Amino acid sequence: MENQIIELQDALDTFYFLVMGALVMWMAAGISMLEAGLVRSKNTAEILTKNIGLFAIACTMYMIYGYDVMYGAVGESIFFLDGISGEGETYSNASDFYFQVVFVATAMSIVSGVVAERMKLFSFFVFAAVFTTIIYPLEGMWTWGQKEVFGMYSLMNPDIEGNLGFLDFSGSGIVHMAGAAAALAGVLVLGARQGKYDDKGNSKPMLGANLPLATLGTFILWMGWFGFNGGSVLAMATKESADAVAMVFLNTNAASAGGVIAALLLAKLWFVKPISRWR
Amino acid sequence: MENQIIELQDALDTFYFLVMGALVMWMAAGISMLEAGLVRSKNTAEILTKNIGLFAIACTMYMIYGYDVMYGAVGESIFFLDGISGEGETYSNASDFYFQVVFVATAMSIVSGVVAERMKLFSFFVFAAVFTTIIYPLEGMWTWGQKEVFGMYSLMNPDIEGNLGFLDFSGSGIVHMAGAAAALAGVLVLGARQGKYDDKGNSKPMLGANLPLATLGTFILWMGWFGFNGGSVLAMATKESADAVAMVFLNTNAASAGGVIAALLLAKLWFVKPISRWR
Amino acid sequence: MENQIIELQDALDTFYFLVMGALVMWMAAGISMLEAGLVRSKNTAEILTKNIGLFAIACTMYMIYGYDVMYGAVGESIFFLDGISGEGETYSNASDFYFQVVFVATAMSIVSGVVAERMKLFSFFVFAAVFTTIIYPLEGMWTWGQKEVFGMYSLMNPDIEGNLGFLDFSGSGIVHMAGAAAALAGVLVLGARQGKYDDKGNSKPMLGANLPLATLGTFILWMGWFGFNGGSVLAMATKESADAVAMVFLNTNAASAGGVIAALLLAKLWFVKPISRWR
Repeated sequence: MENQIIELQDALDTFYFLVMGALVMWMAAGISMLEAGLVRSKNTAEILTKNIGLFAIACTMYMIYGYDVMYGAVGESIFFLDGISGEGETYSNASDFYFQVVFVATAMSIVSGVVAERMKLFSFFVFAAVFTTIIYPLEGMWTWGQKEVFGMYSLMNPDIEGNLGFLDFSGSGIVHMAGAAAALAGVLVLGARQGKYDDKGNSKPMLGANLPLATLGTFILWMGWFGFNGGSVLAMATKESADAVAMVFLNTNAASAGGVIAALLLAKLWFVKPISRWR
Repeated sequence: MENQIIELQDALDTFYFLVMGALVMWMAAGISMLEAGLVRSKNTAEILTKNIGLFAIACTMYMIYGYDVMYGAVGESIFFLDGISGEGETYSNASDFYFQVVFVATAMSIVSGVVAERMKLFSFFVFAAVFTTIIYPLEGMWTWGQKEVFGMYSLMNPDIEGNLGFLDFSGSGIVHMAGAAAALAGVLVLGARQGKYDDKGNSKPMLGANLPLATLGTFILWMGWFGFNGGSVLAMATKESADAVAMVFLNTNAASAGGVIAALLLAKLWFVKPISRWR
Repeated sequence: MENQIIELQDALDTFYFLVMGALVMWMAAGISMLEAGLVRSKNTAEILTKNIGLFAIACTMYMIYGYDVMYGAVGESIFFLDGISGEGETYSNASDFYFQVVFVATAMSIVSGVVAERMKLFSFFVFAAVFTTIIYPLEGMWTWGQKEVFGMYSLMNPDIEGNLGFLDFSGSGIVHMAGAAAALAGVLVLGARQGKYDDKGNSKPMLGANLPLATLGTFILWMGWFGFNGGSVLAMATKESADAVAMVFLNTNAASAGGVIAALLLAKLWFVKPISRWR
């Protein structure tokens, strides 16, 4: 009977990972809609292709090699088939992989929005493959993977006295800063969008083509964040972890709501009529 | 071991609240898309801003004050930080708050659709703040909150013999009638949309600008209703409650499907070609 | 206490069916958006009406009669009210019905995409009623229903030596081949879309009207497949079944990602610039 309880705990944790992971996967649709709504209409088809393509590339490359780099014993296995199975000591390994792989895709999605309207399709895909096979897994290795990469794990480990403290809940560094850094490098190399500045160097407004899509994308991301942050508690089957997940949901919602209110007030102050420019 | 079982029950109930709540949150996107698809295109940006703004305002105001009015000890605490924590005797208090707060936003969403194309943006936001801080919490207080408001709790309580019976599953009165009443008051004050009537007082058709969006919104709402009604059973971790939730899902789906069929038949009878007007 | 554990298992299985079923229901939105994005704009309203109508008809007809044909004792009860209740020996019967009914609707959805732009609205609805009341339930009866239909159950049963082996996980035959066969019959009768060929019999390209919608539909279907395949394990509350569900999620994601990559490479080889035709 003790066994049955432990099995139930493992099953609930696995189910929780899968549901939260599905919500994170859904963010790929959110970013696509947000970007498709905010680029100019001539770039809509390209940005859509980029987003669905990067998601597929991220899922495939991280499965083939990245996950092993980040968590596995490098050198022992090259292909994922050695590293992942449905089983696991507690929750299913496959559910952990599923939750991890949608994070990689999210990191890469951040890049796509920033280099939108600036980068060729297949160049972008090549970078997506490099980012999700090597770059993300390496920085994931010395953090969540808890292995040495250029001495970073020891240097940053908050558990070792005198070292720089590094804390990351839900990938604010590993996912978002990594994606943002790659995106910054991209725009520095690529420069401004064609037509962004007139002959005198004045910036020209480039209004989004489709605000309903952008709004839909915003709501999808809002929903997906519950999976992203909520799933990062990594457990659900004890009272303590369930309480923590619930608090994360509450905070995620409050943060999103606060962001909208701040944006509305700023728009009111700066633009007088916040939405008149879009009509 | 007894403890572990109780913990698991609490964890499953908490998880259930959070998943159902996320589906209700998703209805905010559904109402946005439905309204954005059915207003005239010149009002699209405004209706989108209203919907995302009202959701943010509802979540924030109900957190700051409304939830305490509805369920808390008024006067003891003014800010939510006293009233909510992740913990709870059984399921997490925060998961209850999360499930409640998306209901408030839904009630306010009902208003937005009715006053669409009639009300200024910031006037609407001011009303949203009043509605979600005071009006909804007060009527929630004498019902789900089980406290006296102008003697309504005693008057309506079905448990007290001779009194008017008041029963509400899933907020048909508290959420939907409240939203509808506020919306009715709004249109009585605001009057018809500009251009709705010609000089002779004849009504002019105002066709929706974007039917795919309206359809998407319909499907999102259809999905979200499973969370709205299914979550209102308020428990999942016993056989009895799980059976009840399943029956609620079945009934919610059957009701939605029946509504569509009735609408198609009526459209066939009245319009001959139900969709030719939209082409 | 033993009882409490069994109750928890049943509750978790019921919850799992409902969540997976909601994801499958969501595929109805995905197919609608995909089709609305890929037909010509003059047919958008019609295809939307078809999709929401077929979903409603499928849910209603399968509830009234189809489910009883497929699983019930034919002749004993004509209406579903005898056959379904919230209860059940293990998980709730109603949760099983809910998960089954969204499968029927999916099968019918496959037809709608194929006969898009070719078939009249109410003729399509009449076929939808026939398909979901009789055709699908009959072929479901000799497979998942494990009853004889024209001797097919004995003939195909892999458990009977010497007989043709028939295996179906997640309805590849029962849902997808059935839908595809009905759709093939439909296009053979209906012929090509008007305007598809010029006077000399050359095919003319018919580009989709709205690629963001088609992309959104793709992502919705991607998400919904997790429910479709993941739910087909039919259990979650043991370690073994939870591990299986997780592996199904992983495989479903890998298959979708692989399909996108193959499509991108083929498009690159055949069209040189995969997206230039859509600009």
